[in-house]
Amino acid sequence: MVESESRAPEAMGRTETVMQAIRRRIAGHALAPGDKLPSIRKFARDMAVSPSTVVEAYDRLVAEGLIRPRAGSGFYVSAAMAPVARPDALPEVERAVDPFWVSRQSLDGGREMLRPGCGWLPPDWMPLAAIRRATRAAAKTDDAVLVEYGSTRGSPALRRLLVRQFMAQGIEAGAEQVLLTSSGTQAIDLICRLLLRPGDTVLVDDPCYFNFRALLRAHAVRVVGVPYTPTGPDVDLFEEALATHRPRLYLTNSALHNPTGASLSPRTAHRLLAAATAHDVTIVEDEIFADFEPEPSPRLAALDGLNRVIRIGSFSKTLSASIRCGFIAARPELVDGLIELQLATGFGGPSPLAAELVFRTLSDGSYYKHLAGLRSRLVRRRREMIAELAKLDVHPWTLPRGGFYLWCRLPRATDAAEVAKSALRDGVVLAPGNVFSVTQSATDFMRFNVAQMNADVLKLLQRTLG
Amino acid sequence: MVESESRAPEAMGRTETVMQAIRRRIAGHALAPGDKLPSIRKFARDMAVSPSTVVEAYDRLVAEGLIRPRAGSGFYVSAAMAPVARPDALPEVERAVDPFWVSRQSLDGGREMLRPGCGWLPPDWMPLAAIRRATRAAAKTDDAVLVEYGSTRGSPALRRLLVRQFMAQGIEAGAEQVLLTSSGTQAIDLICRLLLRPGDTVLVDDPCYFNFRALLRAHAVRVVGVPYTPTGPDVDLFEEALATHRPRLYLTNSALHNPTGASLSPRTAHRLLAAATAHDVTIVEDEIFADFEPEPSPRLAALDGLNRVIRIGSFSKTLSASIRCGFIAARPELVDGLIELQLATGFGGPSPLAAELVFRTLSDGSYYKHLAGLRSRLVRRRREMIAELAKLDVHPWTLPRGGFYLWCRLPRATDAAEVAKSALRDGVVLAPGNVFSVTQSATDFMRFNVAQMNADVLKLLQRTLG
Repeated sequence: MVESESRAPEAMGRTETVMQAIRRRIAGHALAPGDKLPSIRKFARDMAVSPSTVVEAYDRLVAEGLIRPRAGSGFYVSAAMAPVARPDALPEVERAVDPFWVSRQSLDGGREMLRPGCGWLPPDWMPLAAIRRATRAAAKTDDAVLVEYGSTRGSPALRRLLVRQFMAQGIEAGAEQVLLTSSGTQAIDLICRLLLRPGDTVLVDDPCYFNFRALLRAHAVRVVGVPYTPTGPDVDLFEEALATHRPRLYLTNSALHNPTGASLSPRTAHRLLAAATAHDVTIVEDEIFADFEPEPSPRLAALDGLNRVIRIGSFSKTLSASIRCGFIAARPELVDGLIELQLATGFGGPSPLAAELVFRTLSDGSYYKHLAGLRSRLVRRRREMIAELAKLDVHPWTLPRGGFYLWCRLPRATDAAEVAKSALRDGVVLAPGNVFSVTQSATDFMRFNVAQMNADVLKLLQRTLG
Repeated sequence: MVESESRAPEAMGRTETVMQAIRRRIAGHALAPGDKLPSIRKFARDMAVSPSTVVEAYDRLVAEGLIRPRAGSGFYVSAAMAPVARPDALPEVERAVDPFWVSRQSLDGGREMLRPGCGWLPPDWMPLAAIRRATRAAAKTDDAVLVEYGSTRGSPALRRLLVRQFMAQGIEAGAEQVLLTSSGTQAIDLICRLLLRPGDTVLVDDPCYFNFRALLRAHAVRVVGVPYTPTGPDVDLFEEALATHRPRLYLTNSALHNPTGASLSPRTAHRLLAAATAHDVTIVEDEIFADFEPEPSPRLAALDGLNRVIRIGSFSKTLSASIRCGFIAARPELVDGLIELQLATGFGGPSPLAAELVFRTLSDGSYYKHLAGLRSRLVRRRREMIAELAKLDVHPWTLPRGGFYLWCRLPRATDAAEVAKSALRDGVVLAPGNVFSVTQSATDFMRFNVAQMNADVLKLLQRTLG
């Protein structure tokens, strides 16, 4: 295989100029499909660049399929011009406020949008220096990590690191009980595919993360909500739901619950697990916000020992949402079924390169300091935002011990969906209560991401709610 | 956020030594949970390293959860030692030879195994220099690419590049018709989730890629095989199957079909599409081996214009299987449904960082030269292996025009599954015919990956078949 040497940035700029010149000629029909391109020597003279720049530009246009080489005879236009770029989507103010509403508007809304409704931190809150270090190191890593599929469970080094973290939380598991996935959501999806059949019933918290609703809808299961209290689900109603609906699964966040920011109390945790055991229900405990906790709160996985509890998590909230990697820790029989399902539906395990980047960042000594700094910064930001929102008579339902969410009741029974629709016209994505509610009983609630709030957002809220 | 400065490699080596020393003390019960660690100053003296090295080692052990800091009081062992490493899996000679057999043995078999049955090239056949260049460049890319979720369809730059390649192949599509996914397999899985319901019927080629069988089993659909000829599926039998089974979908590789290496003839392509149109069947055309073709063969997507044909592909075979990225090109209404399904089941689009690495490698002028070199190398290797296999009376069913597969009939009606089981005991993973066959009619066939063959594999075959 022939590979050209690496090039200096200024040479890349000139190459791009030559490529643009050819693209324009094709777009303007000065060059038609089948036409021969100017010779390298001549075009280099015309463009006042070196012949090697034109060679590079032609090579890259070949890579794009726009031109083709013919042996010994130069380069030819291979097809009509590339289509005119169209935007994927504009803010869609008419789209229904359903469980996809917040994610679609937040992900596709364009850079200029404000996103107090989204579920992630701004980039400059993330451990960028450690990630850049990890990426530079990965450029020198083993060939196999860069190009091969890797093992079915994913990176042994990252799984061993996770198992050591689990031990510290009182959860004993072997690395073979951990399966890496492409994301936390994909982890839950695999579990649902393994354990659920259409028509089964699943319990969730009311309110719960809106994407749990979207995911369970894709599985064509019945979803029953259990009212959530500041110390976890209402256990009496949970028991009642177990008896009445005979669910197969209960899906929850024990620590820093989305959207409320609440965490399980020890007593609720114990009663929940006892009830689930009595009714033989599997629990999926989503740990995605766990690293934001100042001290670990009770974990169902620790009480249960990964027997009927399946732990899932990812690194998207505290490390990177771009380096996609999640995990499942479960009892061994389940892992074997999950491996086959992940092979059948995604082939291979998760990206070895992604796992390497996560592993390098996590085992960089700076990472836990980053977390400590992040937690302090969030404490301050939560306090500020609680004060600012109070001026608008907007108050949190509970005071979270960590994380970036505030679940707030709006004054005068305001319809949050109407506020969100109106805010979208002003370029602000909000997260109205009912997208989180199976029973649609959170009409006047709103979830705020304190890290994404600023003066413009507060002004807009003041206009809308004032 | 506090992040420590980057460290020189030799410092990392010393840090690791200190970490190992602490791990050994904990493993040997010299330090028990709750015990205080030696002070930084003292341990630096004992280990003859600088105090900053011990600080770094302790920080990383904290990140692993093995020890915990207490404000103003030093570091303490936080839990029992990490569990003893156990291997995930050993070669499983007793496992049934089912559609998962080849992938599990190939992925989990360990580095010392030989893999003439696997579906990928050895690392040194891949464009490693370009990938390393792309990774180095990615370490300096925008913050958002490194840490954010990205848009729901995935990287606009990569989608525009794909669209330009499609144009060159006569397929007109807007970038908004392209959805990036985590892999080619996940692309097919999303399409199946959108279009199929349990009990639907799907047509595949007989033989076909074994993972199509595993994937369709996960969807609980009926799978009907259409006998494959050296110019594509037998069209008369395809039409008969359409009339008899009323399938919803036909899933195929038009170019360099897996496992046979055959490609569609123009006449077969036209007749197939006409029959699918008459019976209103959707076709999923998996292009995963397309870049191995010396000249493009007929494409159903080009004939049809992405109307009833959905094109999928990935970069795992020619670029990297570790940087996981696939794509779907389809008509706009389908893309919208697929976006919501990908959000619900994976959250966000595919990794922005993976898409950036693919984009940078593809638009590196060296990539198409790499492909040209790869094709020539494979021509030579195929020729050599055909000659070597002929000595064992093993002959290809057809002569592929590209790629790395040879689909061969074994002499004297030998049972390929028995040969494969026996080879596994000798550390060689083979791909026996029936894992590819819905009708189990390929008992005496074997798929060979010419790039993974060597003298040891040939010797083993000689022993087994001789």
